Amino acid sequence: MTVKESEAGMNAQEEEKGKDAERSKWYTDTVRQSELADYSPVKGCMVIRPYGYALWENIQRPLDQMIKDTGHQNAYFPMFIPESFMQKEKEHVEGFAPECAVVTHGGGKKLEEPLIVRPTSETIINHMFAKWVQSWRDLPLLINQWANVVRWEMRTRLFLRTTEFLWQEGHTAHASEQEAEEEAAKMLEVYRELAEDYLALPVLTGVKTDNERFRGAVRTYCIEAMMRDGKALQAGTSHYLGQNFAKAFGIEFQNKNGELEHAYQTSWGVSTRLVGAVVMGHGDEKGLVLPPKIAPVQVVIVPIYKNDDEKALVLERCRQVYAELKPSYRVHLDDRDNFNPGYKFNHWEQKGVPVRLNIGPKDVANNVIEIARRDTREKIRDVNRDEISKVVFNLLAAIQQNLFDRALAFRQENTVTVTSYDEYKAALAEKHCFIEAYWAGSGDDEVKIKEETRSTVRTVPFNQNHPEGKCFYTGKPTSTKAIFAVAY
Amino acid sequence: MTVKESEAGMNAQEEEKGKDAERSKWYTDTVRQSELADYSPVKGCMVIRPYGYALWENIQRPLDQMIKDTGHQNAYFPMFIPESFMQKEKEHVEGFAPECAVVTHGGGKKLEEPLIVRPTSETIINHMFAKWVQSWRDLPLLINQWANVVRWEMRTRLFLRTTEFLWQEGHTAHASEQEAEEEAAKMLEVYRELAEDYLALPVLTGVKTDNERFRGAVRTYCIEAMMRDGKALQAGTSHYLGQNFAKAFGIEFQNKNGELEHAYQTSWGVSTRLVGAVVMGHGDEKGLVLPPKIAPVQVVIVPIYKNDDEKALVLERCRQVYAELKPSYRVHLDDRDNFNPGYKFNHWEQKGVPVRLNIGPKDVANNVIEIARRDTREKIRDVNRDEISKVVFNLLAAIQQNLFDRALAFRQENTVTVTSYDEYKAALAEKHCFIEAYWAGSGDDEVKIKEETRSTVRTVPFNQNHPEGKCFYTGKPTSTKAIFAVAY
Repeated sequence: MTVKESEAGMNAQEEEKGKDAERSKWYTDTVRQSELADYSPVKGCMVIRPYGYALWENIQRPLDQMIKDTGHQNAYFPMFIPESFMQKEKEHVEGFAPECAVVTHGGGKKLEEPLIVRPTSETIINHMFAKWVQSWRDLPLLINQWANVVRWEMRTRLFLRTTEFLWQEGHTAHASEQEAEEEAAKMLEVYRELAEDYLALPVLTGVKTDNERFRGAVRTYCIEAMMRDGKALQAGTSHYLGQNFAKAFGIEFQNKNGELEHAYQTSWGVSTRLVGAVVMGHGDEKGLVLPPKIAPVQVVIVPIYKNDDEKALVLERCRQVYAELKPSYRVHLDDRDNFNPGYKFNHWEQKGVPVRLNIGPKDVANNVIEIARRDTREKIRDVNRDEISKVVFNLLAAIQQNLFDRALAFRQENTVTVTSYDEYKAALAEKHCFIEAYWAGSGDDEVKIKEETRSTVRTVPFNQNHPEGKCFYTGKPTSTKAIFAVAY
Repeated sequence: MTVKESEAGMNAQEEEKGKDAERSKWYTDTVRQSELADYSPVKGCMVIRPYGYALWENIQRPLDQMIKDTGHQNAYFPMFIPESFMQKEKEHVEGFAPECAVVTHGGGKKLEEPLIVRPTSETIINHMFAKWVQSWRDLPLLINQWANVVRWEMRTRLFLRTTEFLWQEGHTAHASEQEAEEEAAKMLEVYRELAEDYLALPVLTGVKTDNERFRGAVRTYCIEAMMRDGKALQAGTSHYLGQNFAKAFGIEFQNKNGELEHAYQTSWGVSTRLVGAVVMGHGDEKGLVLPPKIAPVQVVIVPIYKNDDEKALVLERCRQVYAELKPSYRVHLDDRDNFNPGYKFNHWEQKGVPVRLNIGPKDVANNVIEIARRDTREKIRDVNRDEISKVVFNLLAAIQQNLFDRALAFRQENTVTVTSYDEYKAALAEKHCFIEAYWAGSGDDEVKIKEETRSTVRTVPFNQNHPEGKCFYTGKPTSTKAIFAVAY
């Protein structure tokens, strides 16, 4: 790189930093103004407001069903974990100890042993598994928990990184390595389906490098999404734990040959971070853009009138349409009389409601409705009122698909293939993007790249089928490609 | 009371203590053996196992719907509460401080201000309400939260009293006292409906005396159920908070006259204690007896066969019946081949499954099914296989009703009316029961009665319509009757 190129790169980086700050402000403003969440008086913790919680419930519901449909059962384990439990799996405690919140007093007395507020529940759940598993007949043990967890964070951001967050954590025990590996893969596929079919976020599926692996796991699989600014977001992980926790907690079973064996395990989770992914993955300058399948309000009806006569006429029509749509859709009639239609349009655009129906006196007279699409911001005028239910049905499906297609096209446009580290740095200096490159580097190489560019290996995708090439960083021959990016 | 009577009373009390211990052992054994819950390695905390959690989900689902149908929205607030917040409402902190778990360290450092793990969320939620409420247009604010809470308990019992438990807590703010009072009454009615229509537990509704009031509330309303041993269980509470928290946290709104006013508030909650109420309110010597509406498994099918030919024939029929019932009921086919039918009968009786279908080779040949009812333990033989769906439908409804009727009759049989303290003590010495009596005593009187008999005023029922009488304890004239009992 010449001096001039380097300067240009620096300028681009400065510009990128400015854009990052702007994007960061946009994100926080959008989350707060759309009333998804608010800051709380407790450092690093947020308040999930009703609109944000409804969005989370709409993500939870299909996921809970998918978890049950794949044979898992929900349960609940204590949120407090004895400090000594955390220390039983060496790598695990090293990974999580710095992030722990510690209860030292209870009922007015100092505790004999401090309690950790769960950062994740492998330790306490596997302690119980050891009591419940004796024979191969007790396996597989397929448990899921919906819970709050706490990881002390220095730099937090609403939904994306908070000290307390809500999640589900699956924990399973199996009689063979193969079965556990299949389970880890199956649940990653559930997460892919949730992200793509409900959140309309295309994701890459693959394996994490050792540096990014969950502490205590043999392997970590992930789904990785691109946000609208080109950065990556880890949206869910599924871990093959091998026998690490089974050995630490003594989960032994008598196999069919009558021999004692340690169980093979998995764990997997997604969190309220997914709400942040939806905001950041679809939002635009007007605010949220919500996929219809998970939007708390799918259709909003805004009456337009100038006087009391018009008001009576228009509201009657609005109520008819509301009553017609209500059984099939999450629909809201905004009949507040202290705001004008323009204010309401902005309000519901900011909240990302997929479809808005505008109904004024002329529309009533002509038996039509005006529809505004949130994703494209197009208006569809003079829709026959008698066909509104069918039109809404088709439009919601079209919007869901369009959001996915748009996000996929965006990811493709912003994925760059590089063959050298100079190209790599130049690409990242220009804009945030996914970088696809042959990779045979070490963990130390990853650390150096991160220090120099803030980017990391996001995933080594499944189903690689490349001819042999040369690692962009080490020059070593390899047929493995990895995806790199700056991540949230 | 003569010496002889007193001795008899003492003996009866000793006997009652023995029964209490026996009943306590029955309860714990039943909860553990039916796999509702298990002890955890964390003092006072329990593990809710899949069967228990499914029961809780079946209670949550209708309640969540009722909460939403009455206009409330779910949200989520931080579990950590700054210590200083707890101190803002004087009575509240006095009530809860001794039960608090305290986080003193986070992220490897000592915190500047300790954080309390929420024992209830009035303080943190009302801090946020103060930010959100400015005008009468922002009211009513109707919020519900599903969450875990922690109250340090010395003597714990699975589900009934645990250090950590799951619950929902409603928090509302209103523009007038009347509206808030109506809200508190409305949500108590929701709890009554949940208890009676879903849990099949008849409850008394009424108000708590000042001694039993929620600390920080103006008035506490409750639903109170009788358990199968005659003891009382507080199953849910709804509080009219007046302006206590609004004043402590500065929730002020501009009313329609343009004046600033403090909001009027309520809070209300039910918890996983309801699972304990179901166990203790319906169970018998064989284990759980679950109301069909909330039973995780409503119908279990047990195949009966002696050899492989019979097995093939019987299992085929079982699978047909399973497939027929599956779309409408929570049905399970117990096709395990390592347990005999007798073992399975016991297993599912212990788990309280309302209806069991036994199918053997003769049943297949005769196109019939044998049905066993869990509540009455009756068998209905030779039910036409082609009518099974209709028979199951009617039977589940009959069992739901029978459990309620039985519990109501039991409460009536075990409610004693007394006119003097001697009668009161004699009644309680004989057996646990509800005592109905004219009452005009003071808080100090309540304390004395509790010290002497372990019993307390459970509720002052609504809709009193008695002629004037004399307080059984003070002799003062009154037209108010109260219900007393020993409570869980």
